[in-house]
Order: sequence, then C-alpha cells, then structure tokens
Amino acid sequence: MGTATVDNGVNVQALLDAREALKGSPEAAQFTWRASCKWQNGTHSQTNIGGFFGLGQEQRHKTETSFEADHPEIFASQDNGITPIEYVLVGLASCLTAGVAAVAQNRGIQLRSVESKLEGKMDIRGILGVDSDVRNGYDDIKVTFKIDADASKKEIEAIVAQSQKRSAVYDIITNPVNVSVEVA
Amino acid sequence: MGTATVDNGVNVQALLDAREALKGSPEAAQFTWRASCKWQNGTHSQTNIGGFFGLGQEQRHKTETSFEADHPEIFASQDNGITPIEYVLVGLASCLTAGVAAVAQNRGIQLRSVESKLEGKMDIRGILGVDSDVRNGYDDIKVTFKIDADASKKEIEAIVAQSQKRSAVYDIITNPVNVSVEVA
Repeated sequence: MGTATVDNGVNVQALLDAREALKGSPEAAQFTWRASCKWQNGTHSQTNIGGFFGLGQEQRHKTETSFEADHPEIFASQDNGITPIEYVLVGLASCLTAGVAAVAQNRGIQLRSVESKLEGKMDIRGILGVDSDVRNGYDDIKVTFKIDADASKKEIEAIVAQSQKRSAVYDIITNPVNVSVEVA
Repeated sequence: MGTATVDNGVNVQALLDAREALKGSPEAAQFTWRASCKWQNGTHSQTNIGGFFGLGQEQRHKTETSFEADHPEIFASQDNGITPIEYVLVGLASCLTAGVAAVAQNRGIQLRSVESKLEGKMDIRGILGVDSDVRNGYDDIKVTFKIDADASKKEIEAIVAQSQKRSAVYDIITNPVNVSVEVA
C-alpha cells in the first residue's frame, strides 16, 4: 500500500523533520505547559490555558480556553463542570487517539474511524478519608478502542500499542511524576 | 472563629455524613467514571463526558460536555483544542482547588480568593522518539497557590497540604495507576 494515498491529516514528515532537528538541539525540546486556575465557589473552579513555552520561545494557542470543574450533585455540589478526575480521562483519551492517527499515517494505514471508551474505577472512601488503605485516585483505568481502518486486527493492535508507547499522558498516569505544591 | 459565619460554598456536613454512611457500605463507594472519544482528523479528537456510576446506580451530570483536543501549530497540527497533557494540568488544578475550599470550610476558615499557576516541564524528545532515555510525560509539575483568606500563612499552607493529601488527581499523577488498553 502506498503511503501517498493515505491521508489521516497528520503531517508525519514534519514530525520526522522535528525529530532530526531536535537531535542536535536538545534545549529546543524543553517545553513548559501552563495553566492558571481561579476558585469560583464551593468546589467549582475555572482553569485557563493560553500560552506555553517551547522551541526556545513563548508560544500561544490560537485561542485561550477556559474549563469549568466541579463536583457532582450527589456530593452536595453544584455540578458546574465535570470532575477533576474526568479531565484526566479526557487527556488520556485524546493523547492515545492522536497517537493512533500519527502512527497509522507513518505506517501508511488509512483510518476511517477511531472511537474509544474509557472507564476509571475509584473507591471514594479514599478521598473521604474513610479508610487510609484506600488510595485517592483511580484503582485502574480501562481503555477500549474500536477502529475502522484499511488494516488487519493485528496491524491495528500494533498501532494502538505504539501509540501507548509514545503517549505523554499514558506515561504520566502509569508512572510517578514529581509534583511540588507551594504557597506564594 | 465560629464556623457558622464561614461560607466557602462547600457543604462539609454532607461530606462528613457521606463518610459515616460509606463506612458501613463500601460497595456504594465504588465509582466508575467514563469518557468516550471520537477521532476527528489528524491529531484532533473530541471527548464526551456525560454519565458515571456511583452510590450503587447510574448517575448523570446536569449536562453532557464535549472537549476538543489537538496538537499546536508548531507541531504541524491545527490547534483545534488544548493538548492532551494540558488537560492533566486542568485536572490537577481543579482537584487541589476544590480540596482547598473543602478543607478551609471544615477548619472554619473563610476564603476570599484562591488562585494557582501550574507549570509542567516536558522534554519532547521523548514523544518524538529522539532519545529512549527521555520520558514521554512531564519531568515535573510545579503548582503555586496564591490564597487570600482569614488565616495565617501557616494555616493556609496546612490547608494546601491537606488538600494534596486527599487529592485524587495528585495521587494519579504522583503514583502509578494501572491502565489497560484494548482493541475491541
């Protein structure tokens, strides 16, 4: 199958060029992603994302975006937005999906549709402080992809596996990240 | 200071009641949070959050919400939404902020404003496959709170520390979570 006829909308050549360019200039590869958050009331907050630093200079998204987060009504909150841990699922789903598209493009495989369902299991006795042996976060997360593509089941599984291998959010969730929290 | 005069908008009594109730029925504390994601084109995807399972039954958010994610233009993408890893910052910011409000309420401390800035450092040579010793995700994340409240610096720092201790997203990022990825 010729890759020339395959178009998943990913500019793989640009990514391969970036890989070559960054081999010689590791300092350009140092990115800082940023968010700023304002408490609204109760458990409701608003987080803004606008700019970041990368390739040696300040960068801006095309638009600044705001995200509402809250706890649901069954936690005696107002449900003014999805919960913080649901945002983690959004990040994981979108990271793996972008990876599937990029890897498929690189392998010359045309995608027709990529859908996924995510389920994160959590025992809320952790965050409520009922039992100190129960963790606060997810016990585990299950991601199930349904992919329609010009490829065998085996090729599709290999694409998904490679996406996992290169996924930033998959790494963040499955491995420890150092987080420091300070009061100014 | 009487807690009766303090109102951060968090119904702490309901949370304390829930804690008591769940001590005797751990099965009601088992939650499943869900997301479904659809690839749009290139690295652009849309993730929907609507319902979840908890307290022994299906639950719905007041509204179903969609989230666009993409890679930025400097990665040869369309920037149709924030990046997947920025969603992780949204989750962390909102989780710690909700915790600050709840802990302050429980301690009888009135909050006037809670703001935070988050910075996640990442070496993109990881996701590009330039150097296998470079991880894909964040090297580290720094969160800086600026809080105006009827409390000393020491009390404010203690509130933030307690919020960290009970934060689901802080746990997910700083500790490993099992993630399984399958193709249906």
